[in-house]
Amino acid sequence: MDRIEATYYVETPYPLADAAAVMAGEQSSGTFVAIPGETEALKMQYAARVERMEELETVAASSLSGEQLHFEKYHRGKVTISWSLANFGANLPVLCSTLMGNLYELRQFTGIKLIDIQLPDSYTTHFRGPKFGIEGTAKLISSQAKTPLVGTIIKPSVGLTIEDTADLVRRLAEAGIDFIKDDELMGSTLNSPFADRVHAIMEVLKNHQDKTGKKVMYAFNISDEMDNMLRNYDTIVNAGGSCAMVSLYSVGLTAVKRIADIGQLTIHGHRNGWGMLNRHPLLGVTFSAYQKLWRLAGVDQLHVNGIRNKFWESDESVVKSIKACLAPMEGIRPALPVLSSGQWGGQAIDTFKLTQATDYLYLAGGGIMAHPGGISGGVTGIKQAWEAAVAGLSLEEAMQKYPAVKQAVEKFGGAKS
Amino acid sequence: MDRIEATYYVETPYPLADAAAVMAGEQSSGTFVAIPGETEALKMQYAARVERMEELETVAASSLSGEQLHFEKYHRGKVTISWSLANFGANLPVLCSTLMGNLYELRQFTGIKLIDIQLPDSYTTHFRGPKFGIEGTAKLISSQAKTPLVGTIIKPSVGLTIEDTADLVRRLAEAGIDFIKDDELMGSTLNSPFADRVHAIMEVLKNHQDKTGKKVMYAFNISDEMDNMLRNYDTIVNAGGSCAMVSLYSVGLTAVKRIADIGQLTIHGHRNGWGMLNRHPLLGVTFSAYQKLWRLAGVDQLHVNGIRNKFWESDESVVKSIKACLAPMEGIRPALPVLSSGQWGGQAIDTFKLTQATDYLYLAGGGIMAHPGGISGGVTGIKQAWEAAVAGLSLEEAMQKYPAVKQAVEKFGGAKS
Repeated sequence: MDRIEATYYVETPYPLADAAAVMAGEQSSGTFVAIPGETEALKMQYAARVERMEELETVAASSLSGEQLHFEKYHRGKVTISWSLANFGANLPVLCSTLMGNLYELRQFTGIKLIDIQLPDSYTTHFRGPKFGIEGTAKLISSQAKTPLVGTIIKPSVGLTIEDTADLVRRLAEAGIDFIKDDELMGSTLNSPFADRVHAIMEVLKNHQDKTGKKVMYAFNISDEMDNMLRNYDTIVNAGGSCAMVSLYSVGLTAVKRIADIGQLTIHGHRNGWGMLNRHPLLGVTFSAYQKLWRLAGVDQLHVNGIRNKFWESDESVVKSIKACLAPMEGIRPALPVLSSGQWGGQAIDTFKLTQATDYLYLAGGGIMAHPGGISGGVTGIKQAWEAAVAGLSLEEAMQKYPAVKQAVEKFGGAKS
Repeated sequence: MDRIEATYYVETPYPLADAAAVMAGEQSSGTFVAIPGETEALKMQYAARVERMEELETVAASSLSGEQLHFEKYHRGKVTISWSLANFGANLPVLCSTLMGNLYELRQFTGIKLIDIQLPDSYTTHFRGPKFGIEGTAKLISSQAKTPLVGTIIKPSVGLTIEDTADLVRRLAEAGIDFIKDDELMGSTLNSPFADRVHAIMEVLKNHQDKTGKKVMYAFNISDEMDNMLRNYDTIVNAGGSCAMVSLYSVGLTAVKRIADIGQLTIHGHRNGWGMLNRHPLLGVTFSAYQKLWRLAGVDQLHVNGIRNKFWESDESVVKSIKACLAPMEGIRPALPVLSSGQWGGQAIDTFKLTQATDYLYLAGGGIMAHPGGISGGVTGIKQAWEAAVAGLSLEEAMQKYPAVKQAVEKFGGAKS
């Protein structure tokens, strides 16, 4: 039977092979002494197996605390473990517990990070994946829409009245925006109840569509308890919307898949909370590995941060996440990478240079709202920056050709961006 | 309006007050420049507020990477932030995104860990919390059951046939066990489909109940997609079971609450994957903080690791988690702490000394299965060790009084336990 493989970057004071054996043991039969009933035949079929190991650097100090003993050296390396599909069925939470479960607790490791997952076709075939993905998202906006799609976040995140929000949406639509989203901190608040917000915004966007033929996509944050999420989803569908946003880590894999399975709206996957799982180089999981589970769950649009973002993440890491979302997965569509965080157009040229791709949803908050040319200047500046990027212009050249790019550089270029 | 408070242990190269202001900004209005529409009145009501700060140690090297600049010193301290309830409604995922969202990405911090949450009564009143909790769990087993309840995990975790599993369950019940659980890696496998396993095991347990009046609680792992979880839940109810197990982090907050809301079964909350969120001292969240969200979601039994566990966690940290689960929360029952990992009875005396409590579900896997006196000796040894603990005996004295404790010490006492 086919097997699922997972590769970990690990650190351990013990010989790598011994530590890998502990990991495989914990993630299959798993107790601290040999016990009756654990036959060789059973182990052959159900036990996790160490497939490959690669020794890497040795360090003098441990990254995380483990054994309460002193060691002179800690070995780092890559370990690939495999499990038979017989252990799972098409059950994402149990797969998640197997790949990212108790193994993070093992004292034999002073570092453990999941860096890759390989899923056989016989597994992925049980999943539909993103129903809309890149092309589906663009088509829902208009037959002429092309990537990068330009979007923004309603700011201030929390506190605007529905009237102010709807008015802002109207101005954004008139400025040529493709996509707008709720902030992840915005659910249903006292002065902006969910259903009222949906109705007010969709009325604005339908008016805009009647005039222009373009249906700006609005990602309403439906993150909530299950029944409320389903009701919120229906509210969007009935109001003629095209997108539901979910906070992936706050809502969780099971409810996100339940929502994505409905298939009437694109699913915008926000990754707030992600820093907990990834910020340490030797703990947690990389996004290039984790995005496979979210794609299997059916998320169409996945946040990946952006180049020269306002957060801690390096450009190298962002590029890896982008490429992973766009990489083929048997029978499963790519997810549309959502670039955001301190973006204002100035990063378009480098983003294109580093990835040679334009299949993005490119979000700017302050980069649009605070542009010297107003909202319209903000949207135009970003679209022109991407034209310049694809044409191979430098930022200098783009500034000369496009006044809105010049204004953006003058306003944001010196900022920590 | 009442406010929710969260306290973080942080590290930053900047003055603590400046860094705290960035955190509060990101977790309310949140963009990188001042924008129109963000009025003072709006900020007053909806903005996060820095309530308190406490300067702690200064260190020369950063814990996590942040700004790409060199600093001489990094300041550590505690920062308490508050938000108005007007921002949330009774929406756990949005609360989660607010307390544990993008703030982990801030480059201004080289360490950030959520260490406490204070929820006003006007918030917790919207939640039922654990329907059964400690007393409810015990009562479902028998009117005579008293804590600590002694339980075990079916081992090998994966691979046993249903017949072998049912036979093991019968022997465990006959040995006097109170509680048995699936392993978290066990969902529905080729040779142990979920419904068949439930029926076979419940038949054994009902026979045992007919003979003895005691209904051993079995936690079937229902973790799966939403519809499967609901079906699995019904399968347990219809077969006369009393407990459903969920892998909290693999399933997620929304689906766990949906399941707990049904209220016909106790909910056993397994915390595999937790290491990712807690293992670094300056990243993620402490269990004493996070358990409040799981209690609000209605989880009755919460894994907290155990004293001298086989994992990396210190006894001090385990004791904090235990005390947090048992601590009062307005209108919300305590959760029953589930002690496990390398437990065999020898830790009973220290567990009682450190906590002065017996309201536990005490799980031993190998500690029961591999006891020299067989399963019966294993269960008896643990019960006797707890009797000794409550009577104030030392382990030496307990060994002299109770042969099954003596056997356990001789077998496991020298092990890394």
